[in-house]
Amino acid sequence: MVTQSDIAKLAKVDRTSVSKILCGAQLEHFSDDVVEKVKSFAIRLGYKHRHFKNALKLGFLFPVGMDEALDGYTYAERTMAALLGASKVLEGSKHSLQIVNINYSNRTFDFDKVANTADVFIIWELTWEWADRFYAILKEKQKDFVVINRVSASFKDSYIIHESDEVYIKSAIDIFCKYGHSKIAGVFNDVEKTGRLSAMKEAFKQKGLEHSAQNVFSFHERDADGCRKTARLIAERGFTAVFVQSNDMNALDLVIELGKLGLRVPEDISVLGNHKKRSLPSLGLDLSSFETPWYEMGKRAAEFLIAGYSQSDCSKRITHEVLKQKFYEGNTIRGLSR
Amino acid sequence: MVTQSDIAKLAKVDRTSVSKILCGAQLEHFSDDVVEKVKSFAIRLGYKHRHFKNALKLGFLFPVGMDEALDGYTYAERTMAALLGASKVLEGSKHSLQIVNINYSNRTFDFDKVANTADVFIIWELTWEWADRFYAILKEKQKDFVVINRVSASFKDSYIIHESDEVYIKSAIDIFCKYGHSKIAGVFNDVEKTGRLSAMKEAFKQKGLEHSAQNVFSFHERDADGCRKTARLIAERGFTAVFVQSNDMNALDLVIELGKLGLRVPEDISVLGNHKKRSLPSLGLDLSSFETPWYEMGKRAAEFLIAGYSQSDCSKRITHEVLKQKFYEGNTIRGLSR
Repeated sequence: MVTQSDIAKLAKVDRTSVSKILCGAQLEHFSDDVVEKVKSFAIRLGYKHRHFKNALKLGFLFPVGMDEALDGYTYAERTMAALLGASKVLEGSKHSLQIVNINYSNRTFDFDKVANTADVFIIWELTWEWADRFYAILKEKQKDFVVINRVSASFKDSYIIHESDEVYIKSAIDIFCKYGHSKIAGVFNDVEKTGRLSAMKEAFKQKGLEHSAQNVFSFHERDADGCRKTARLIAERGFTAVFVQSNDMNALDLVIELGKLGLRVPEDISVLGNHKKRSLPSLGLDLSSFETPWYEMGKRAAEFLIAGYSQSDCSKRITHEVLKQKFYEGNTIRGLSR
Repeated sequence: MVTQSDIAKLAKVDRTSVSKILCGAQLEHFSDDVVEKVKSFAIRLGYKHRHFKNALKLGFLFPVGMDEALDGYTYAERTMAALLGASKVLEGSKHSLQIVNINYSNRTFDFDKVANTADVFIIWELTWEWADRFYAILKEKQKDFVVINRVSASFKDSYIIHESDEVYIKSAIDIFCKYGHSKIAGVFNDVEKTGRLSAMKEAFKQKGLEHSAQNVFSFHERDADGCRKTARLIAERGFTAVFVQSNDMNALDLVIELGKLGLRVPEDISVLGNHKKRSLPSLGLDLSSFETPWYEMGKRAAEFLIAGYSQSDCSKRITHEVLKQKFYEGNTIRGLSR
């Protein structure tokens, strides 16, 4: 049986302080370091204290600065959706939320400080190699975490993600084939990403379709020239169907560029987007796309972390969940007679 | 000097319970009603307890359901921005955040229950008449609140909002006049809203320009026909400049419809949007617009509420702040030689 005195000894504070800290009382009398140390030892020793376990601070860690959050096509939507999912779980509970907004591109944030901002973490797609240091710190502190949205194939810790690019590619090609298309192009923001090219090859092969570098295009969200060039090549090469893996707004950009070349959607070419967002009414179309379960990800991640927190050793719990994207049938895919 | 016994007497619980509740300790032993009652009496009596005052739960109440949050053009961006502003203030503090998402259109939410979800509230634009009941409940419970984004002219409680439509209209007309335009149209999603028409008249009059119903157009975000009709009338009536008050995505819709009629932006017609969002690269333009200080609103609201909470009587504090929108100069306004 672990006692508060055991924790006090390890943390080098008196027992009354341990009691107050674990009760969440008079916290203003203690430095953040001391609070952190006491909580950390309490978890490590498996100390059971109902109130402490009930007063969970759930950190929602996500990338991008304010400017980008407002500016990117879907950053705000996806983050809001996941946040709402997590909040739904916290509603009416004693738990609280801490939004932790880090500009990942800096790579210079104070891992230790960030790890101290919450008891457990929902982490948006922090899957770069340099982030391993952060995960090591979380584990050292025995703080449970779940990465959501996407992870690399080698990622071993807990994650709740949407289906992979490979699944999207296969689904897109399946759908187009079902509608009688065989001249299919794929558009990415970054085709070099692991698995995309080979997924294209594999999916084409399964359908008995010929695949080459001619089928694959890429341009980044703000690259007007790249989008224009892609539209021109798609027109020249006579594709009847194109899927845009990056997102719906990129797909709309492509639709506009195709329109400038006289190609109408879906009469001349069918288009399938990704990460459903509503279309511009002026384009006169309702983009067919896939809906991404961001709300559900946030919700399940929060549920997992809260469930784990009531157990004595949360560090050994691992979850690997892959949530399905859902096909949204708009009016931008035309059936070809065969 | 108010004591815990005074509170215990009023709340009809024992003194130890009052102590625990105000310390935030062992809260799981008490029903939400009891916790709420004790806290409420403590505030009403002006009881000073450092920890209690330090453990502030800040509710962020905003409208729209999940679907709309993802679907509307700027709902997610503006909400994220305000949330990030509020979170910034909470960072590293003992305070916590509670996102409270209500579908306002239902008008049926349980006001009392919502009021109990947090100690103080940042409220997104809840300024309809039926909402007065909610404000009355918050006041009764002596819970401080700030309404952000917009309020009606008659709203007397605390608000931190962006400049009014009237200011936007005047600024837009000022900018166009500075560039030598005199044939100016205004586009709204709802022109009937108080003050918009008279603000148009007034601003035109100040510049010595003629104003009539011919200058004013309106269509809603999803109304493709309305947008098309507006574009046609703008072309027919020979305007050289148009501002779109509703938002930048509506402005882009209008740009696309004008393009179908052969009108190029800014060569043939200048366009000014609102609530800056980046343009579609495929349109080959960087929309001139106004940036709305949503982040700043959330930040200041949280600062105000936290500052007030450390005082004994927060119910009498009122703030009325109007934050400026900032002109963003893109490339969609052309100077006319006079």
